[in-house]
Amino acid sequence: MYVIMAYDVAVERLDKVLQIGRRYLTWVQNSVLEGEISNSNLQRLKNQISETINKDHDTVTFYMLRTTKYSKKETIGVTKGEPTTII
Amino acid sequence: MYVIMAYDVAVERLDKVLQIGRRYLTWVQNSVLEGEISNSNLQRLKNQISETINKDHDTVTFYMLRTTKYSKKETIGVTKGEPTTII
Repeated sequence: MYVIMAYDVAVERLDKVLQIGRRYLTWVQNSVLEGEISNSNLQRLKNQISETINKDHDTVTFYMLRTTKYSKKETIGVTKGEPTTII
Repeated sequence: MYVIMAYDVAVERLDKVLQIGRRYLTWVQNSVLEGEISNSNLQRLKNQISETINKDHDTVTFYMLRTTKYSKKETIGVTKGEPTTII
């Protein structure tokens, strides 16, 4: 499936969450990663995120598209794609 | 259609972009809004965002789902929904 992951976490956990996300998905812009992922890897990703964030404070949202056939993506402004430096 | 809008803009334009986004969509977490929107309102939203951001620096991405039938949303951590204060 195709997954969009958007994270809103405290500064001290930003690097760790980004690092986990990039194991499975592609960074596209600040706080957003996306990509094709298998069910088992999505489960791993969610488990690792669960263990890392503070659930009383942080939010990580996964939008899971069964297919990209019914969706379209449009970017206004600069397309960032893979970062050259870790943000 | 259903739209997810993720923005990554300079601090000085954050308030303005959020304010425009909230005219049409619902704030769900830092830098992300979503909701049902008509084609004409989406066009208005995109125009207003285009006029507001610095396209050499900022990024605003729209994921447009023709239907939510093929998608699923899952949140780990706190569900923020509508903010009680403007962030």
